[in-house]
Amino acid sequence: MTVVLRTIAEARAWVRAERGAGRTLGLVPTMGALHEGHASLFRRARAECDRAAISIFVNPTQFGAGEDYERYPRTWESDLRMAEREGVDAVFYPEAGEMYTEPPLVTVHPGKLGKTLCGPSRPGHFRGVATVVAKLFHILQPDRAFFGQKDAQQVIIIQRMVTDLNFPVAIEVCPTVREPDGLAMSSRNRYLSAEERKNATILYQVLRCAETMFKGGVRDSSRLEQEMERQIQEMIRATPGAELDYARVVDRWSLQPMGAIDREALVAVAVRFGKTRLIDNLILTPEE
Amino acid sequence: MTVVLRTIAEARAWVRAERGAGRTLGLVPTMGALHEGHASLFRRARAECDRAAISIFVNPTQFGAGEDYERYPRTWESDLRMAEREGVDAVFYPEAGEMYTEPPLVTVHPGKLGKTLCGPSRPGHFRGVATVVAKLFHILQPDRAFFGQKDAQQVIIIQRMVTDLNFPVAIEVCPTVREPDGLAMSSRNRYLSAEERKNATILYQVLRCAETMFKGGVRDSSRLEQEMERQIQEMIRATPGAELDYARVVDRWSLQPMGAIDREALVAVAVRFGKTRLIDNLILTPEE
Repeated sequence: MTVVLRTIAEARAWVRAERGAGRTLGLVPTMGALHEGHASLFRRARAECDRAAISIFVNPTQFGAGEDYERYPRTWESDLRMAEREGVDAVFYPEAGEMYTEPPLVTVHPGKLGKTLCGPSRPGHFRGVATVVAKLFHILQPDRAFFGQKDAQQVIIIQRMVTDLNFPVAIEVCPTVREPDGLAMSSRNRYLSAEERKNATILYQVLRCAETMFKGGVRDSSRLEQEMERQIQEMIRATPGAELDYARVVDRWSLQPMGAIDREALVAVAVRFGKTRLIDNLILTPEE
Repeated sequence: MTVVLRTIAEARAWVRAERGAGRTLGLVPTMGALHEGHASLFRRARAECDRAAISIFVNPTQFGAGEDYERYPRTWESDLRMAEREGVDAVFYPEAGEMYTEPPLVTVHPGKLGKTLCGPSRPGHFRGVATVVAKLFHILQPDRAFFGQKDAQQVIIIQRMVTDLNFPVAIEVCPTVREPDGLAMSSRNRYLSAEERKNATILYQVLRCAETMFKGGVRDSSRLEQEMERQIQEMIRATPGAELDYARVVDRWSLQPMGAIDREALVAVAVRFGKTRLIDNLILTPEE
């Protein structure tokens, strides 16, 4: 039985009852438009906690002007069915006016972690993300919260937020779930035309290529970046409206540029197909 | 019996035990150098909660370059005695390195609430305050937290932080405690010379004068500001090293300038005596 919680007061009452009974609570924050990537998080939450809650909230403050807040897919009926099928105990599904009674003045800032990679294309995005996740943590008070590695920069910012602000929450990062051809699952994939969908596999291809070069001994981050860029530009020439946002190799934890890959590195790419922006990433780990 | 908690792990264990036993928890965050104003907060916490905890932490991130972080009074022995005398159950007394293992990247920003009044003289101060209070709330997880009205801008920022980020904490604001001559109690009063101490009563005097004018029917905020300024400048001419920082009448909740006082107003003053900066305030409430 999946409980739907529409207000903060309802959510707090549910949390109070569950925690009062000594049960541990797992949370998966989502924006809905659920896919198999989300389902994998729900299963982790169920396996590791006595109760699994998810939130479905298309958070306006993390969308910039001209981004897809209005047209972001809202698929409540099928989202709820998936939550039920996966044995989710509670879905927190508030209206925007419930989460933001007034425009927020006090917010959580990700500092320099929000300024690299997706930061320049999405000013204010990671402040919106960090702020809404802080709100959800305070409302639902989970013991553990589950995020997908696909949103690598978001994950690092949330982990650092938890450390820097001492949130009593453990962050669990779950592997990216992919389509059979390697494309990372994303609620935004449905925006793609058939042609774009076919060419979108380039993201994972260049990541795997960078990984292969790394495993073959290449340690110069800019060589990996150049090769990824070269391959993406080739795809772009054949794809109307496609555009490279970035193809970067950065320090895994600070997200800052690195020269030699002598420690864990995040390889991250972002490509635009018309108005649709896709991201993907993987981690490189030098042997000790 | 007052327990002293030196580490975050110790604090969390104490909180877990108390909350596990179903007891409510009150928190008074302080920087030590405790005086009767603090004691009044401790008594409120004891009266309203099953357990009263205080924190004593001179938070480096809320001091600017050239401010008094190094020389801020540290009076641990007498602070602990006061805590014991007042029946405080636990004192969280961490080292700076325990609270900040690395320089924080993710912080809590007070937005425009941090830019008025004390903001311009103390850049970064309220970000430091909001961030450390968020940390303390996450570590000690109080049901209620108690703050003094003397630090009016801090109080508004903390209240707004709790609202905007949905902290599960009730904020209780307690009246300013004053010396017999009206000077608001402050850990920084001990910095004053005998002459400065005598003249420092001007802060409360001009506040009371503004209140009297208001009660006499004056509703123009700038008239109150001008009269306060005039009186402070007169004192300053007789006091070497004294300087006006501000004398302002602002909207009580937004801290923004107001013309006519047709809603709750905060009257706030700040005066420097050499390196020592004193603040005080009161609230004006128009009758309905």
